[in-house]
Amino acid sequence: MGLIALGHKNPDTDSIISPMIVSHYSDSLFGRHAVAKRAGELNNETKFILNYLTDSTIKLPDLLDKIRAEEVILVDTTEQTQLIEGVNENNLFAIIDHHNLGGLKSSKPVYARIEPLGCTCTILYKILKEKNLEITQEVACLLASAIISDTLFLNSPTTTDEDRTILKELNKIAELDLEEYSMEMFKAKSSLEGIETNEIIEKDYKFFEMGKSKVGIGVWETVAPETVNEKKAEILNALKNKKQKDDLDYLFFGVVDIIKENTYLYLVGDEETNLAKEIFKGNLEDNVMFAEHIVSRKKQIVPQLKEKLE
Amino acid sequence: MGLIALGHKNPDTDSIISPMIVSHYSDSLFGRHAVAKRAGELNNETKFILNYLTDSTIKLPDLLDKIRAEEVILVDTTEQTQLIEGVNENNLFAIIDHHNLGGLKSSKPVYARIEPLGCTCTILYKILKEKNLEITQEVACLLASAIISDTLFLNSPTTTDEDRTILKELNKIAELDLEEYSMEMFKAKSSLEGIETNEIIEKDYKFFEMGKSKVGIGVWETVAPETVNEKKAEILNALKNKKQKDDLDYLFFGVVDIIKENTYLYLVGDEETNLAKEIFKGNLEDNVMFAEHIVSRKKQIVPQLKEKLE
Repeated sequence: MGLIALGHKNPDTDSIISPMIVSHYSDSLFGRHAVAKRAGELNNETKFILNYLTDSTIKLPDLLDKIRAEEVILVDTTEQTQLIEGVNENNLFAIIDHHNLGGLKSSKPVYARIEPLGCTCTILYKILKEKNLEITQEVACLLASAIISDTLFLNSPTTTDEDRTILKELNKIAELDLEEYSMEMFKAKSSLEGIETNEIIEKDYKFFEMGKSKVGIGVWETVAPETVNEKKAEILNALKNKKQKDDLDYLFFGVVDIIKENTYLYLVGDEETNLAKEIFKGNLEDNVMFAEHIVSRKKQIVPQLKEKLE
Repeated sequence: MGLIALGHKNPDTDSIISPMIVSHYSDSLFGRHAVAKRAGELNNETKFILNYLTDSTIKLPDLLDKIRAEEVILVDTTEQTQLIEGVNENNLFAIIDHHNLGGLKSSKPVYARIEPLGCTCTILYKILKEKNLEITQEVACLLASAIISDTLFLNSPTTTDEDRTILKELNKIAELDLEEYSMEMFKAKSSLEGIETNEIIEKDYKFFEMGKSKVGIGVWETVAPETVNEKKAEILNALKNKKQKDDLDYLFFGVVDIIKENTYLYLVGDEETNLAKEIFKGNLEDNVMFAEHIVSRKKQIVPQLKEKLE
């Protein structure tokens, strides 16, 4: 049976690069060949990174929409709602992740390595080092890029000292100008080139079940929030449509200013507005709340919503 | 908040020794002190091991019946049904295990290390080695004992090459006569001294939900199956009572001959008998089926039952 390495839907950089790295080393790590796959389209940040590493020897993941007969090395999530169709307890082979446990079961013992670090690629680096596997400049660049992306260049509250140390170690091999490279990455991520309004709200979107409520949370991380905010009317309209279409109880969308470390939280209805007032207590103007010092969905939005809704 | 290391209910040797080791090294492993606890009484095998290591510096786990305000490092299981009251997604701090994923959730990212190896203590040895932590003779004896116990001295089908290699490495420090020591352990485990019939069926008992069925499976591993089999009438009676009391759909009890590597499977009703006939196809005599080459609940009983019942 084939073996694939796969991240979550609406893949961010970590959910693209982690399967690439797992696949590249899978013979050494698991004694089997694994093919990297992706559960959605590349975002502009990931495209920038992969373009930057022009002479790549590491294969880009192909798109996959559902599991047929493959076994799965799952990276960067264990939430059933973030998986493509067909991942189940019978084809789960391994897990590498840095999020909350999502409650997956397996019908046989699996290999699972989960750590409360800023990025799946931080864990992958640790594994490669423990196994004394060679880390080339290309691999170091890929791992460093994912860590920069997930931790907002070590500024997100999900960042740990291990992420800091490991990014430094990686850059001895990668030899990037980290400040400049990060800024280029974030500019690419912020670019609205070729992006429809619907994509802005869907590109980094996750669905959660909290108590009895169906909750959607999209974020758009950017160095230029004004480029998104000037489309406010369109975005609110798109959110309204999505909430109805997906039959959600709550839908939140945050434009995250990764330089100033604030979030513009778009509130599509009264339910969202009332909850946001209770939790984030920011200034509200025309359905958008300005939430200071909020940058992380994982640490600063999801747990707070869960506490209210569960 | 206090931190504890804890295994499953009806603890076997691995579920006692793993919390002891985790607690002993928890400052280095997790940057926090963790106290070892146990979720049930010691069996005669574990008592033998702990008596053998008379000058122990490692504290014996105290009994715990429910979680109050503690955070939990869970070892040797992730099945909700095998946990004491109060372990939940809010107090889960870490997991180290070698079984199927049981579907636990966590409300924050945890540290989880799960590997398809023969024993939790095999994984603990790998972790200690990766972190360059000192393994004393006492620690080596404890780890080796748990590996011998869980793998039936490397004879169970759950045994991997890594278990074999690591037991050998450990014994360079432990300096046990492995053959003789294992036999002493198994004799102690087989001893019925001070054991009531109810305890025989409950000592290594696990509860599973398979599809809509509530399934109990107890095993008694012994070098002298005749000492148990001569109590057949009493045992079948005790099983009948337990099945009714716990409102089970199926209750199986296996007397595992760990020398000859066979199991005497006690079948309390028609439901169990019909399933066992389909799956194990052994010789049936007076409600006991002789199942050849069956020694592992995890590999040779649970998955086969699940396939039929789910």
